[in-house]
Amino acid sequence: MILIKVGGGTNLNTVGIIEDIKALDQKVIFVHGASVQRDQVARQMGVPTKMISSPSSMKSVWTDKQALDILVMAYAGLVNKNWVSQFQAVGINAVGLSGADGRLLEGIRKKHLISVEDGKQKLISDTFTGKVTSANTTLLKLLIDGNYLPVVTQPAISDEGELINTDNDRNLAVIAGDIGIKEIVVLFEAPGLLTDINDPQSKVSQISHKDLDKYMTYAQGTMKKKLLGAQEAFSRGVNRIYWGDSRVDNPITNALAGKGTVIS
Amino acid sequence: MILIKVGGGTNLNTVGIIEDIKALDQKVIFVHGASVQRDQVARQMGVPTKMISSPSSMKSVWTDKQALDILVMAYAGLVNKNWVSQFQAVGINAVGLSGADGRLLEGIRKKHLISVEDGKQKLISDTFTGKVTSANTTLLKLLIDGNYLPVVTQPAISDEGELINTDNDRNLAVIAGDIGIKEIVVLFEAPGLLTDINDPQSKVSQISHKDLDKYMTYAQGTMKKKLLGAQEAFSRGVNRIYWGDSRVDNPITNALAGKGTVIS
Repeated sequence: MILIKVGGGTNLNTVGIIEDIKALDQKVIFVHGASVQRDQVARQMGVPTKMISSPSSMKSVWTDKQALDILVMAYAGLVNKNWVSQFQAVGINAVGLSGADGRLLEGIRKKHLISVEDGKQKLISDTFTGKVTSANTTLLKLLIDGNYLPVVTQPAISDEGELINTDNDRNLAVIAGDIGIKEIVVLFEAPGLLTDINDPQSKVSQISHKDLDKYMTYAQGTMKKKLLGAQEAFSRGVNRIYWGDSRVDNPITNALAGKGTVIS
Repeated sequence: MILIKVGGGTNLNTVGIIEDIKALDQKVIFVHGASVQRDQVARQMGVPTKMISSPSSMKSVWTDKQALDILVMAYAGLVNKNWVSQFQAVGINAVGLSGADGRLLEGIRKKHLISVEDGKQKLISDTFTGKVTSANTTLLKLLIDGNYLPVVTQPAISDEGELINTDNDRNLAVIAGDIGIKEIVVLFEAPGLLTDINDPQSKVSQISHKDLDKYMTYAQGTMKKKLLGAQEAFSRGVNRIYWGDSRVDNPITNALAGKGTVIS
């Protein structure tokens, strides 16, 4: 079984990704993002996505109730059901799931967040963010054994039953660990990990998971979270992660052939 | 097994509905609408829901690609995942599904629609509306046997894998027929079928399904669709439908006690 994650975006080769999954001779759990679509919806609703910065300079989305609603609409509604319909159109029996369904991604809601704005620390208490602690794999296994393709996305659910915004890259690691998956493919709109974000030639082809820390200095923005997610995945028993470009022909075949960045 | 449908609305007694379902000693399939929430999102996005009228004076939502996207976000995203999280919060293991998931609600997309505007007929071809022809009950049964509560909503999926807007009241009839359910509870923001929409005292307590046609003259707007849906349900083997008020204490207990309108 393999776990495949595709980031949210509008330039990705959806048809190529679906073709590749259809051609794979193993079971798949599919995880997707929808950050670009969420931001589009938020802008059109007149409440643009607002980013906050933690004291350790990690960026994240400021998730009050309205931002949470928009996230749920874009991830679990618009993008999830469009993936499902496109899989169904080629005969793949997809079932879309958020982390709330069957408590698939269960976690803890953060009571408070500290954000740094203009050098000043600010306490945010009305946040619907959290951290996933376990994947309820019973539902996933039921669907996989029934020959369905699980199509998984945000939000997750707290121990008190609240919808929460969590880190999809970290969630991958929790799913893989709890279900015992050894290989993950992660596709995004870049050729792989670049040491110079402006130079596609600076791609790193191979990384030992022991060296992931070193690459934190090169990584910017969401790439930092992908590196942290990769570290977490290795700590939970994953032994190979393929990063690849979601925009090219046959993105998954490409990534599995090592044409992006392979972490092992 | 019983099928329970709750219309979209903002005044409904969500807590009471969930309590009632928790207390029921039979398996449930839960279906919900989200029309009010869809209209709110559409307004906030600057593209208010537009209604069209058929040559037979039946009103329906004009569903171009953007209206479909908004429907998917409100129904399968926002409202579906909020029901799921509220069920999960009281320990009911809910799983949200649209009609696209596992092809649960499969139908035909209409190539054209005729709308009547200012007395003139107009051909609409960019419509994502359709009619559900079958319910794929395999997935529903898998989940019910696994002790999950299916929480079902729009959109449906066409035979070509397109997301389509269909009539939720008619879909109820198709699900009930295909899975062999005999009783349906339908909750909405009214005490039952009223012969005078402005007079709650004009509620009809009992209707024979053979007389449903007669009541079409009293029914306005979405109530007409509920009557048609009820006729379809009886033609597919259902033998009792309880209509009741979603706003009162214990809405389901109330409806099952015959305090709304019972069709038999």
